[in-house]
Amino acid sequence: MELRIGVIGTGAIGEDHIRRLTDTITGARVVALSDINKENAMRVSKKYNVTFYETGYEVIWSPDVDAVVIASWDPTHAEFVLECIKAKKHVLCEKPLGTSAEECMEIVKAEAAGGKKLVQVGFMRRYDKGYRKLKEIIESGEIGEPLMIHCCHRNRVPGPQHTTDMTIKNSGIHEIDILRWLLGEDYESGQVLMAKQNQNALDGLKDPQIMLLKTKSGVRIDAEVNMNSHYGYDIQCEVVGEKGVIRLPDPISILKKKSGMGSHEILADWSQRFVEAYDVEFQQWINSIKESGPVGPNAWDGYVAAVTADTLIKARKLKTIEPIILEPQPAFYC
Amino acid sequence: MELRIGVIGTGAIGEDHIRRLTDTITGARVVALSDINKENAMRVSKKYNVTFYETGYEVIWSPDVDAVVIASWDPTHAEFVLECIKAKKHVLCEKPLGTSAEECMEIVKAEAAGGKKLVQVGFMRRYDKGYRKLKEIIESGEIGEPLMIHCCHRNRVPGPQHTTDMTIKNSGIHEIDILRWLLGEDYESGQVLMAKQNQNALDGLKDPQIMLLKTKSGVRIDAEVNMNSHYGYDIQCEVVGEKGVIRLPDPISILKKKSGMGSHEILADWSQRFVEAYDVEFQQWINSIKESGPVGPNAWDGYVAAVTADTLIKARKLKTIEPIILEPQPAFYC
Amino acid sequence: MELRIGVIGTGAIGEDHIRRLTDTITGARVVALSDINKENAMRVSKKYNVTFYETGYEVIWSPDVDAVVIASWDPTHAEFVLECIKAKKHVLCEKPLGTSAEECMEIVKAEAAGGKKLVQVGFMRRYDKGYRKLKEIIESGEIGEPLMIHCCHRNRVPGPQHTTDMTIKNSGIHEIDILRWLLGEDYESGQVLMAKQNQNALDGLKDPQIMLLKTKSGVRIDAEVNMNSHYGYDIQCEVVGEKGVIRLPDPISILKKKSGMGSHEILADWSQRFVEAYDVEFQQWINSIKESGPVGPNAWDGYVAAVTADTLIKARKLKTIEPIILEPQPAFYC
Amino acid sequence: MELRIGVIGTGAIGEDHIRRLTDTITGARVVALSDINKENAMRVSKKYNVTFYETGYEVIWSPDVDAVVIASWDPTHAEFVLECIKAKKHVLCEKPLGTSAEECMEIVKAEAAGGKKLVQVGFMRRYDKGYRKLKEIIESGEIGEPLMIHCCHRNRVPGPQHTTDMTIKNSGIHEIDILRWLLGEDYESGQVLMAKQNQNALDGLKDPQIMLLKTKSGVRIDAEVNMNSHYGYDIQCEVVGEKGVIRLPDPISILKKKSGMGSHEILADWSQRFVEAYDVEFQQWINSIKESGPVGPNAWDGYVAAVTADTLIKARKLKTIEPIILEPQPAFYC
Repeated sequence: MELRIGVIGTGAIGEDHIRRLTDTITGARVVALSDINKENAMRVSKKYNVTFYETGYEVIWSPDVDAVVIASWDPTHAEFVLECIKAKKHVLCEKPLGTSAEECMEIVKAEAAGGKKLVQVGFMRRYDKGYRKLKEIIESGEIGEPLMIHCCHRNRVPGPQHTTDMTIKNSGIHEIDILRWLLGEDYESGQVLMAKQNQNALDGLKDPQIMLLKTKSGVRIDAEVNMNSHYGYDIQCEVVGEKGVIRLPDPISILKKKSGMGSHEILADWSQRFVEAYDVEFQQWINSIKESGPVGPNAWDGYVAAVTADTLIKARKLKTIEPIILEPQPAFYC
Repeated sequence: MELRIGVIGTGAIGEDHIRRLTDTITGARVVALSDINKENAMRVSKKYNVTFYETGYEVIWSPDVDAVVIASWDPTHAEFVLECIKAKKHVLCEKPLGTSAEECMEIVKAEAAGGKKLVQVGFMRRYDKGYRKLKEIIESGEIGEPLMIHCCHRNRVPGPQHTTDMTIKNSGIHEIDILRWLLGEDYESGQVLMAKQNQNALDGLKDPQIMLLKTKSGVRIDAEVNMNSHYGYDIQCEVVGEKGVIRLPDPISILKKKSGMGSHEILADWSQRFVEAYDVEFQQWINSIKESGPVGPNAWDGYVAAVTADTLIKARKLKTIEPIILEPQPAFYC
Repeated sequence: MELRIGVIGTGAIGEDHIRRLTDTITGARVVALSDINKENAMRVSKKYNVTFYETGYEVIWSPDVDAVVIASWDPTHAEFVLECIKAKKHVLCEKPLGTSAEECMEIVKAEAAGGKKLVQVGFMRRYDKGYRKLKEIIESGEIGEPLMIHCCHRNRVPGPQHTTDMTIKNSGIHEIDILRWLLGEDYESGQVLMAKQNQNALDGLKDPQIMLLKTKSGVRIDAEVNMNSHYGYDIQCEVVGEKGVIRLPDPISILKKKSGMGSHEILADWSQRFVEAYDVEFQQWINSIKESGPVGPNAWDGYVAAVTADTLIKARKLKTIEPIILEPQPAFYC
Repeated sequence: MELRIGVIGTGAIGEDHIRRLTDTITGARVVALSDINKENAMRVSKKYNVTFYETGYEVIWSPDVDAVVIASWDPTHAEFVLECIKAKKHVLCEKPLGTSAEECMEIVKAEAAGGKKLVQVGFMRRYDKGYRKLKEIIESGEIGEPLMIHCCHRNRVPGPQHTTDMTIKNSGIHEIDILRWLLGEDYESGQVLMAKQNQNALDGLKDPQIMLLKTKSGVRIDAEVNMNSHYGYDIQCEVVGEKGVIRLPDPISILKKKSGMGSHEILADWSQRFVEAYDVEFQQWINSIKESGPVGPNAWDGYVAAVTADTLIKARKLKTIEPIILEPQPAFYC
């Protein structure tokens, strides 16, 4: 039995998900799509032979659609997710779940009220082989208790609309979610350091930033978020434990010796870096909702990430160390 | 439209292919299986809800089966492939295509006579990301003409039935095929050196061996085939060109620093090492036979590999440098 | 003409310097030594055939001694250095120059008053090939302006007398000096984060710590100082520039593949890690004082390091971000 | 007491040895030099304040000279070494010891007849930290018996006078000596394969070559000797044992991430690669002849290397596998 998927948003990432669901994922097929940019949506509709709908709402309520993927403009995520909950349909929403903690909390409450797990958030790093292996080693106890994590999130260049807040809200949020997942505990406080300004940055963009996080148990995290590395897309993560250290592997690449140099290619963007993680994320999502329901990052995880990002942005503006304060977690998510 | 697959042979690799076709590959499903070990075949039949057939022939001729995967005992490969050709069904046959050059030539002739490409051989390394990237760089001309290739094929321990000939015929054959594919040219001659005998080897097993190959254009290859590396499954390949050198990447693994050592895990066997290559091989095979027919390693490639392996075994026994002589290539394969 | 050296302090590092000056360094020989532990000093005196003196003062004032190396107990450094200045003799003093900023300032003033550069401080990392190469690349402009530095100083275990303050004053001080030298600029402010407590640490020792420094131009530094890495002595340094990133190399070590692992040995202590840096430091010091005078880290550098360490310790205790305030630099050192 | 050294040959390597003995080595100084190129010899004589002699013979017999370093044109090595033996002076002769096995045997006989070890051959790789560590691990038994060695000797470009024979006689000879030393056993037979011709090679130069050696106990060696790697000077060595594999480390170099690449510099020539090995070689030679006599590679080692190189050249020309036959080893060298 194939799951019939509706996709809202057919920009770069939305179209890529349609391709993924069509060519790579087994057990599902895309039957509906919509996008605010109609012209492009029509093109994709023809290319993949998928029915075009005028609005995301129509996609969600279509009787032909079993589950929904949301890859539309960030500010529309929350309303579509809420509608899916209303329609009692499974939904995989690209991060962020909402543009603020409040929006996310509204979703959390709606889902809990509905009494059924329907929402999964697109934190695809949790499906990356390297991060999974890191978590496995941490949980084995082999390096003792984790004490610190050093990481970097480096983009080659930011998108043209990138803002200083988005560095945390859109890029840093991946670090926020994955490190909380790796450690299995919540954050206590956060601080943001502005590094020396990169002269290559967009007009007015403050870049790079360093997010400092402290977990409830005292683990210290420093995460460089650098939108203008200039050299490539580079994700680093080192976990320092009481008895040893482990480091996230780089993607495989050919060693080439030429012209006085041994070199490895560095990827240019996230879509190459995490292509397999996306494949695994989607396959597991499809499989899980055919079985007992989604097991990936849920609405509560989306809420926690949003609170943390909001708090870090505040801490950056005030140059303070801010406590990260969550509402009580509904029993529904425990 | 899903392709209906019959699988002959449900040993370790056959069962793994059934799992792959069921859980990972899109556009196909397994509908028939058989194995000489009925008990195990029945178990797999139940596990994956696939109809059991008494013989491979029944699988091949079943009207429910669109295409066949052969993963049975090596000596049965050729007869089943010939039957598939007779039944005009696509077949993906695990390597080796036949146990001798003669068997392979019979297949080549039968397929050419039938006038339709039906046979693909399971040289999965051609789908490995690392080898593909090596080929891409070679063909770009970036390192100039290739002059030499140094490689190693190391197993941790050999299987219990392993023989001195199998080192070349079953393990070395992967090197034989992949290097010919990488370079895009045929071999001229071969020689085998016996290294110092590993005392850990099975009774009577001569191990390790070094295959020396020379291509038509003069490229020199040395390929260690070592069944008792003791430490893991390790595949290395370095291409030395006129202007540079490139090396096959190792699979990703976590750097762990502990107890006075920085370490990386080394895989234990081929199934882990080439799991993604198998996935890509099967998906591309399924896709291709729905379209214009198979584009992977064909019967002629299987024949060339068999001739080369046979010649190397002869060279090893005679301690000579032997010419590698192929029959004329049928126009059908050009 | 061989320089005649007196060595004050014949503990582990003092004895090693005597060995170095005797067996490795050209153009110098050790003629005098003293130590508070007379028994051990006598042993070393015999072993290297060097005259024993009752006190450091006698070594300094001996007419047989051209220049002095101080490797005694930290609290005695400043007084011996001041005595060398009084005696107008060149002195290479192991770090720290003094146990407080005040002691160092006294030396700075005395040396400036004397009008001759006599003091060099044993910040041997400046002679490490890796750090030298980092500095060369930074200064070439190849990676643009440095924006951030991430580093780690990890000991396997602390010495038995180690205290929470010493983590910064004795270990972290190497980072403080080398990064200021790498960047060629002074610090503006500092902060210290306590990571989650390592349960392996000595009784009462707060470990690990993270020093955060900001330079005058805005470069941000995070430096883990970890006395209980448990796995070895490990020094890491990554400089993030506007256009690229460079990383300090690890010392060479054999790749060994065995028992399912590829591994590299990690050194156990600083004496192995920086043995060549010490050799170069001493040879260049000997050469320089025969020529136009010492060119290595000077008393002012020792003072700056002490001020920075003191400020960081204060910041750690107060949990604040503290400005790093230097007295005006005497023209003598410009 | 300083050893007074005479240096014969003041070309690139000779001048570098004078610099080394003057600036880096302790316990020796250069007091005499000569060269067939008088003009250059005079320049070096002034630069290092060393007495110029008209001929190598005068250097050898000068009463001011305690020991001799020979770095002259290869064909003159043997006669100067023989003269040193006559003069009963210690001599460190750059490789090769002679231009043929016969010349080397003459030296062996003369030295043995004199009854005193006086000759050391400049196989500096034996002093390289990486090779020393390989030998240490082999001898520890940790990887079991060595079974195979894979190695590469790659030059960026050959010198202008380079010939096809010199590839083995001058470059390959380093591999010949170091592998025999690593394994602690002699060779039984050799073969040479010509790889595909590098179009970048000098007119008439056959390059690259692969030397195949088999030791008495059956260890198989393949050694690529490649004069036109084009990319740099690169020395690789992998020892495959019964239970594990070890690999020679590359020299340290900075990891630089820039412009879509992570890269390491590769050295351009041997003088950079083995600079520390030369330092250690000279220091140990000086120390040893002050004590009980030289302990480095001796005349017999020079003879064995010459026989092996001669045999390999013959094997290359005849395209055969040739036995490597040594004269009986004089008891003097056992």
